[in-house]
Amino acid sequence: MSVGLCSFPEMYPVNGIQIGTACAGIKQTDRDDLTLIKLAPGSALAAVFTQNAFAAAPVVVARDNFIKSNPQWLLVNSGNANAGNGKKGIEDALSCCRSLVDIVGGNFEQVLPFSTGVIGEKLPVTTIVNALPQALRSLSESGWKNASEAILTTDTRPKGASIRLDLGESPVIVTGICKGAGMIHPNMATMLSFIATDARIDRSILQECLQLVVEKTFNAISVDGDTSTNDACVLIATRCSGAPEITRNSPAYEIFLDGLFNVCNQLSQAIVRDGEGATKLMKFVVAEATNTDEARIVANTVAQSSLVKTAFFAADPNWGRILAAVGRAGIENFDISRVCIWLGNVCIVENGERSEEYTEHEGNAVMAKEEITIRISLGRGKGEYRMLSCDLSYDYVRINAEYRT
Amino acid sequence: MSVGLCSFPEMYPVNGIQIGTACAGIKQTDRDDLTLIKLAPGSALAAVFTQNAFAAAPVVVARDNFIKSNPQWLLVNSGNANAGNGKKGIEDALSCCRSLVDIVGGNFEQVLPFSTGVIGEKLPVTTIVNALPQALRSLSESGWKNASEAILTTDTRPKGASIRLDLGESPVIVTGICKGAGMIHPNMATMLSFIATDARIDRSILQECLQLVVEKTFNAISVDGDTSTNDACVLIATRCSGAPEITRNSPAYEIFLDGLFNVCNQLSQAIVRDGEGATKLMKFVVAEATNTDEARIVANTVAQSSLVKTAFFAADPNWGRILAAVGRAGIENFDISRVCIWLGNVCIVENGERSEEYTEHEGNAVMAKEEITIRISLGRGKGEYRMLSCDLSYDYVRINAEYRT
Repeated sequence: MSVGLCSFPEMYPVNGIQIGTACAGIKQTDRDDLTLIKLAPGSALAAVFTQNAFAAAPVVVARDNFIKSNPQWLLVNSGNANAGNGKKGIEDALSCCRSLVDIVGGNFEQVLPFSTGVIGEKLPVTTIVNALPQALRSLSESGWKNASEAILTTDTRPKGASIRLDLGESPVIVTGICKGAGMIHPNMATMLSFIATDARIDRSILQECLQLVVEKTFNAISVDGDTSTNDACVLIATRCSGAPEITRNSPAYEIFLDGLFNVCNQLSQAIVRDGEGATKLMKFVVAEATNTDEARIVANTVAQSSLVKTAFFAADPNWGRILAAVGRAGIENFDISRVCIWLGNVCIVENGERSEEYTEHEGNAVMAKEEITIRISLGRGKGEYRMLSCDLSYDYVRINAEYRT
Repeated sequence: MSVGLCSFPEMYPVNGIQIGTACAGIKQTDRDDLTLIKLAPGSALAAVFTQNAFAAAPVVVARDNFIKSNPQWLLVNSGNANAGNGKKGIEDALSCCRSLVDIVGGNFEQVLPFSTGVIGEKLPVTTIVNALPQALRSLSESGWKNASEAILTTDTRPKGASIRLDLGESPVIVTGICKGAGMIHPNMATMLSFIATDARIDRSILQECLQLVVEKTFNAISVDGDTSTNDACVLIATRCSGAPEITRNSPAYEIFLDGLFNVCNQLSQAIVRDGEGATKLMKFVVAEATNTDEARIVANTVAQSSLVKTAFFAADPNWGRILAAVGRAGIENFDISRVCIWLGNVCIVENGERSEEYTEHEGNAVMAKEEITIRISLGRGKGEYRMLSCDLSYDYVRINAEYRT
């Protein structure tokens, strides 16, 4: 199940990026589960990784190699997270990197490994290594769609976004894919995402752009409040476009940042739409907070409330649960009688109590929709925060109760 | 559904307490929903109330009257929370208090009102007031069992605990009831509980004892992470026992504190056992933390993780989810390679990875049980915290999706 009809978009190839996939058979034998992304020499790379102290082995290795080298390859497997495997996990991740450079040449530190799937099972290194030649043979500029499918785990559909930016003489492309449906909660990038652009932009500006955008997109979504051990979001700039260099002061900077936001926004929204068991997409807007932090705390508390999430699953305009979650967010000197809440365009809570004009009929009409905006105004200041979440359904329990068995 | 076979215990009457119940017909017409507790003159009273900023009207009134007067009556209704009703809610709660003293005499400030049930519907004052004579006629020292049933909402069974303490010449009784199954999360007392003792103890020591005990019992449980708007825990000392006065330095103090802990522990555990949709009782022990606060943060994070909770529902020894939740608890300078985890007596994680001796067979055997102790040792210090939680099942979603309809 997933919310909304989203056909997979047209993916513009990115000059300087080649992608290959293969069926290694890590967990299933009837689908591709290995992805290779080859970067043009001279590419700049930005990345953010999970904040979870229990970081998976590939995250440790990728973070390390990202700092030490100019990466040339991303090696991604689904079906096994290679997390909780101690030193053996690190050795296994390194073995995969070394096996790749044994074939293609170069240094193992130029390979960034990524894994996603079941935690705590040993990485089947031989299985992966045996599939490398197949993945290499399939390298192509048009591999984005295949890769978007090969990186999935509990996702029900592939997720991609692609735009063409007009930066004068030559266009600049930003194309990305991601995966993620469970263990999704803002704390850096809560999934795997690989985004590439042919823009000419240096590494430090690229990293700055990624962090700015991730904060408002991948870090502003929640499916179940759990943060994965394997999260990573990588942004590659191949610098192959004919468009001029993007610097902090060039007019192209804002255009590029907007374009990157657009792509990351589409990708992160696609994750929530495909949230495990999701039947509703909820867009929370907390406004009139003292500051952004306060708004974020309230948005997080409400978006994660199991009672709020089940009410949305039931299409029940249960404003009491929303107000109760706002009330327990821990805001100091909080006067609940200034709070107003709208479901879509319907004002349901006015000054801390049920709005006099509100009718259940109106509330039910909004709740029947698949996508619902919930605006919570605290009446305290000008801080605002937006966040996406989904409902809590029988299927969430089924998916997570059955996942390992 | 609820975890474990718990027959309702024998309830020792408390000298100086009379309890009456009636069927007012607030939400259902086939069960008692109104409870009156009459206190002997001279009784001391201690109380803790919800920390939710969105406190219900009865909480506001009860908190106020508790400070101003020597309460003589507790007036409790189920079926309607009288929360989110603004000024009208306060007026309605006061009307009920006034109507009671119109019949029994005294000042309305001597009545503490409590409500539990649906949020955001107007309190049916006339319905409640009309049932007061019936509740008054049924006042009796043996009303505890009836009251334990009349205060329930989504609970599937009544909850009571009662002990007799040997304090020398005369025994001292501690008897209590509580209700709560959803919207349960540590932040003061996350439910309604009424406890009485005939001990001779003054109000300030009583309040101190209640706060000490609540911190380790009612505040150390979680069903769904949501804190109710109506929570309250009241402890009455009627001072009618023949046993000597309990002072801070008397030997009886520790005996009384232990006894109160015993009763509150039974009551709070009964709430988690009856947690909405619960099929498992999980006892989390976080040990070797830097301090108690750190242990509490880790316990809270793991006990509330939807992924951990669904794994227990599935009887799946998914230690990776537990370790991932520990990892995202936000502990600074956290070395995951010192973490060990036991399911029951089975060491499942050793030094941050799957224990070498561990077999799935052993893990499955523990997970098949209804009650499971999860010990998480952080290897950092001597801080420890214990916390109870339950699993996340299809029935939790069903109960909360259907509650208002």
